[in-house]
Amino acid sequence: MPNIYQQGLDKNAANYTPLTPLTFIARSAYVYPERLAVIHGRRRYTWLETFTRARRLASALSACGIGEGDTVAAMLNNTPEMIECHFGVPVTGAVLNTLNTRLDAETIAFMLEHGEAKVLLTDREYSPTVRKALATLQRPILVIDVDDSEYSGPGDPLGTQEYEAFIANGNADFPWRGPHDEWDAISLNYTSGTTGNPKGVVFHHRGAYLNSMSNIISWGMPPHAVYLWTLPMFHCNGWCFVWTLAANAGTNVCLRRVDPKLIFEAIREHRVTHYCGAPIVHSMMANSPAELRAGITHQVSGLIAAAPPPAAVIEAMAHIGVDLTHV
Amino acid sequence: MPNIYQQGLDKNAANYTPLTPLTFIARSAYVYPERLAVIHGRRRYTWLETFTRARRLASALSACGIGEGDTVAAMLNNTPEMIECHFGVPVTGAVLNTLNTRLDAETIAFMLEHGEAKVLLTDREYSPTVRKALATLQRPILVIDVDDSEYSGPGDPLGTQEYEAFIANGNADFPWRGPHDEWDAISLNYTSGTTGNPKGVVFHHRGAYLNSMSNIISWGMPPHAVYLWTLPMFHCNGWCFVWTLAANAGTNVCLRRVDPKLIFEAIREHRVTHYCGAPIVHSMMANSPAELRAGITHQVSGLIAAAPPPAAVIEAMAHIGVDLTHV
Repeated sequence: MPNIYQQGLDKNAANYTPLTPLTFIARSAYVYPERLAVIHGRRRYTWLETFTRARRLASALSACGIGEGDTVAAMLNNTPEMIECHFGVPVTGAVLNTLNTRLDAETIAFMLEHGEAKVLLTDREYSPTVRKALATLQRPILVIDVDDSEYSGPGDPLGTQEYEAFIANGNADFPWRGPHDEWDAISLNYTSGTTGNPKGVVFHHRGAYLNSMSNIISWGMPPHAVYLWTLPMFHCNGWCFVWTLAANAGTNVCLRRVDPKLIFEAIREHRVTHYCGAPIVHSMMANSPAELRAGITHQVSGLIAAAPPPAAVIEAMAHIGVDLTHV
Repeated sequence: MPNIYQQGLDKNAANYTPLTPLTFIARSAYVYPERLAVIHGRRRYTWLETFTRARRLASALSACGIGEGDTVAAMLNNTPEMIECHFGVPVTGAVLNTLNTRLDAETIAFMLEHGEAKVLLTDREYSPTVRKALATLQRPILVIDVDDSEYSGPGDPLGTQEYEAFIANGNADFPWRGPHDEWDAISLNYTSGTTGNPKGVVFHHRGAYLNSMSNIISWGMPPHAVYLWTLPMFHCNGWCFVWTLAANAGTNVCLRRVDPKLIFEAIREHRVTHYCGAPIVHSMMANSPAELRAGITHQVSGLIAAAPPPAAVIEAMAHIGVDLTHV
């Protein structure tokens, strides 16, 4: 064998760059600073603003002692804060543990305990559940409330600080670094515990990077997609689409709750091009009154997972102009 | 740190799958067996046929003792054989050394010597140069001639066998395996030696995989692109597009030589969607007579490298319906 083939890059060498989706947001903020990254009701953030908010979050968490291998839990809807957590948490070296907002206090408490979360970011909509869960914890945990301006329902703050105040103290120049090793954990997601205690599933930076890229290639997503968040980000990190949208320099259209009226309004108003959803989401859309869908003339691509969708759903979705892909 | 984060996948573990572009062709042959992979004059190959031909090539090379760390050199135009080499050579564990067909015998001899090539696949168009180069080699080398049915010019065969006969003896079920380590070499490309002896640049499987994926994402290539081979595959493995097209399950439109008439004919006839080229290729296209371009009404995307193209070229290309991206 020629010597030249034995001098290859070594993964331990200084010039080895670990694969991580953290690079996606830095690139989009650099190349497309003014492009719209996030739409949430009346709120709008460009890629530079989203990057800056994620850096402030990282800085604020670091100042609280959060770093490598720590767990930061999030009980959040599909809001800008949840997107920021997907970048601002792992860049500190910590692992993001998203919590299923539909679970009960006992299950949430189990996850906070088992995942050893040091911080919990929680939307005040879930205060009744979270309060109960926190009451059973044997150790202190830093609680940051998210008081979304697009939410006007009930729910008291539980923590010491609100999210906006918390990140306002963070440094917008927080150094943006990948992990030491691409096999390091980036996120922790629990099963729902239908067959015993929930099981934790750990994603590594490498896997999150590759899955994010594959989402674009296998679905044929063009750059700058307008993506509607019908799939919860707490579900497998939204099939990694939180990171995918940063790689795509696309626009995240947030949605606090799945409702056909809100979905069709968002598709019409923002000219949504892509969305993902469980079969039930597509059924809801297919069975909604025709007037909700009026005025939508552009092509929309939908990704559907789980069991193959019934022919009736495929036909109904085609009828309303959605090109479905089953994964 | 919770224990769960320390139990991550180990790259040395049995379940670690090395990144390699060899997986792309296996997937396209499985998912899209009947899709057109290669167009070359009157020749046509589907993805299953291209995969099968690459497996036969790998099997025939293995039977000659070619394996891990060996070098297989190719003095080929942009033909189906060159595409097959990009898969059939590295799957044996060997490294593909593509040679710049414009170089002289002395430089080619240097590369064959320095890269320690054990096999040379050579198009008979280059026989005069290759004969001289081989005459100076101090050691035996297996020479396989490519006698392209689309080539009718001069050039005698030099070797012991022609490519079609060589692969006909190969096994179509040759086991398709990735490298042991994703950092293993996949290809060797030499500089042209303008400042001394040519320097060898080694690509690893990981880099080739990632660059191939990035080509799709950063250019926004939709699945099943129709790609025209105006860029030589011997140049940095065609910027990795040989592998990209397999990931994309697209169609390779081969081209033995760069000529505006042939380029526009191919674009019109095969409805080419994408191509890459040095500035000179774009200038030739921009300055060609309007009648050559008649009848092309669809959008074509061109990738241009090197120094930023002059405004006149950008304007002329836009005028003929080409959307240029500078990389």
